[in-house]
Amino acid sequence: MARASDVDDLVRLAREGDPRAVARLISLVEDASPALRDVIAALMPFAGNAHIVGITGAPGVGKSTSTSAYVAALRARDLRVGVLAIDPSSPFSGGALLGDRIRMQEHATDTGVYIRSMASRGHLGGLSWAAPQALRVLDAAGCDVIILETVGVGQSEIEVVGVADTVVVLLAPGMGDGIQAAKAGILEIGDVFIVNKADREGASTTSRELRHMITLGERTAGAWVPPVLQTVASRGEGIDEAVEKIDEHYAWLKDSGTLAQRRLRRARDEVEAIAVASLRQRMGDLGGEELLSTVAAEVAAGSLDPYAAADRIIASV
Amino acid sequence: MARASDVDDLVRLAREGDPRAVARLISLVEDASPALRDVIAALMPFAGNAHIVGITGAPGVGKSTSTSAYVAALRARDLRVGVLAIDPSSPFSGGALLGDRIRMQEHATDTGVYIRSMASRGHLGGLSWAAPQALRVLDAAGCDVIILETVGVGQSEIEVVGVADTVVVLLAPGMGDGIQAAKAGILEIGDVFIVNKADREGASTTSRELRHMITLGERTAGAWVPPVLQTVASRGEGIDEAVEKIDEHYAWLKDSGTLAQRRLRRARDEVEAIAVASLRQRMGDLGGEELLSTVAAEVAAGSLDPYAAADRIIASV
Repeated sequence: MARASDVDDLVRLAREGDPRAVARLISLVEDASPALRDVIAALMPFAGNAHIVGITGAPGVGKSTSTSAYVAALRARDLRVGVLAIDPSSPFSGGALLGDRIRMQEHATDTGVYIRSMASRGHLGGLSWAAPQALRVLDAAGCDVIILETVGVGQSEIEVVGVADTVVVLLAPGMGDGIQAAKAGILEIGDVFIVNKADREGASTTSRELRHMITLGERTAGAWVPPVLQTVASRGEGIDEAVEKIDEHYAWLKDSGTLAQRRLRRARDEVEAIAVASLRQRMGDLGGEELLSTVAAEVAAGSLDPYAAADRIIASV
Repeated sequence: MARASDVDDLVRLAREGDPRAVARLISLVEDASPALRDVIAALMPFAGNAHIVGITGAPGVGKSTSTSAYVAALRARDLRVGVLAIDPSSPFSGGALLGDRIRMQEHATDTGVYIRSMASRGHLGGLSWAAPQALRVLDAAGCDVIILETVGVGQSEIEVVGVADTVVVLLAPGMGDGIQAAKAGILEIGDVFIVNKADREGASTTSRELRHMITLGERTAGAWVPPVLQTVASRGEGIDEAVEKIDEHYAWLKDSGTLAQRRLRRARDEVEAIAVASLRQRMGDLGGEELLSTVAAEVAAGSLDPYAAADRIIASV
């Protein structure tokens, strides 16, 4: 159990570059420990400086390889880098899928890089709650850039938009043309599109179709037009250009005032989520749980409508 | 504006098979109209009888074609069928993607089939709220089976698990082997796996890998073991077998008591969601919105921690 003074020590050590202190702080926020409030409060003065880059895309497009290549490029610029990898936690997968992470091991002994995996399920309050707190730890620890790598399918892909400053969407030739991308809803979430595995057939067709679909989107004057780049991450090709475009987007975010707006909205969402979670907790504490089970049984049986049931719950809070 | 008596009339007409009454009721629940509570209350006594089948899978696996083929097979058994298709509503897609729906037009003049598209975004309360209410309308209108077809990427894929009795996961050969399926987190959500486009190369490899991955999952005695089938939906091949397996799963759900458990949990989640939404509304009504903006600015600036900010919001409710 961490006391407030311990928390301040941990934050100081993390800022001095102690990877164990960073790991301990992330565990404290991830587990929603009793010290959580103290941890968040201690981090606040130091957070807000990192560029948070979300990387998303379907399985097989090369997210881990690309992340590793970006880390190398950022380290070459002497920037401190954090990586938060959201892994699907399936009862079927076990630890096997962590094999992907092995590619990251070239950075494992580099003290300028923090790498952390986080299961996408099973968090108190959900990933949408745990990931921003882990990002805050990495941010306060002095990371210049934090890469948030998500699985390609499911809720986390949508949620990454809510927490990243810049969203990088990875595609691979033949895995989906522009129409498929539009169908999957990714055209509207990407700030930078990268066709990886560009040495494969169809890379220029995929890039051209993407560019075309992007031009169809309505934009106001001065809005960011997402670029489409090609990389072969496994050989490091095109990575410097990709990192430059990601940088350019960050500069645009700052200059246009969009960054400030997004961070304000994010703070608003976070405060609201915490307030709602507290109210929900209060429902439970005051015997609401038992009442909830009772009325739910009546709703399931069709003898009570869910609004009337909710009214009873609220009256009890 | 629908009055309570109008609502009762609409429900009666819907139960008599009037498609316009069904459409009007869905619009009322979808738009969260003031009559919503009355509509839900009027539907309650008639709902709870339909088998809700969720169909999900990546773009390009043939979800629309498969849905259409299942509808034909169910109609041949003289069952009333509802289809709720969740469409991505992207500013880039416009109406073009609705071309998929054209394939469903063979059923458009069949009065035993209701087909409804629902945008996956822009609903008051979100899809997780709107879709169950639309399903309740179709259920109360007397549908024996309701097919909920979702886009393959994003939150809706996860949410389908929450509202469907039986989740059918569609795959196509070469679009992902077992490992990729595990990575995408779909192995744990499917009750029936179908490798569509099974006339393509790799169908048996994909089926074999899937079966292998499924055997790796831990199960208690008597648990349902998801079968893996092959279909060529465009030619109707394997569809009857698929419909039989879907039926078998429903029978298992009922016999094992799982259906009752799931519906109880669903009712519980729904009541809780309505209660939380009401509390959130209350925060806004009591000037919480303005206070929220004020404290969010302090959080974004790093001068206030989000927990202390949430405390201020709650104190004002």
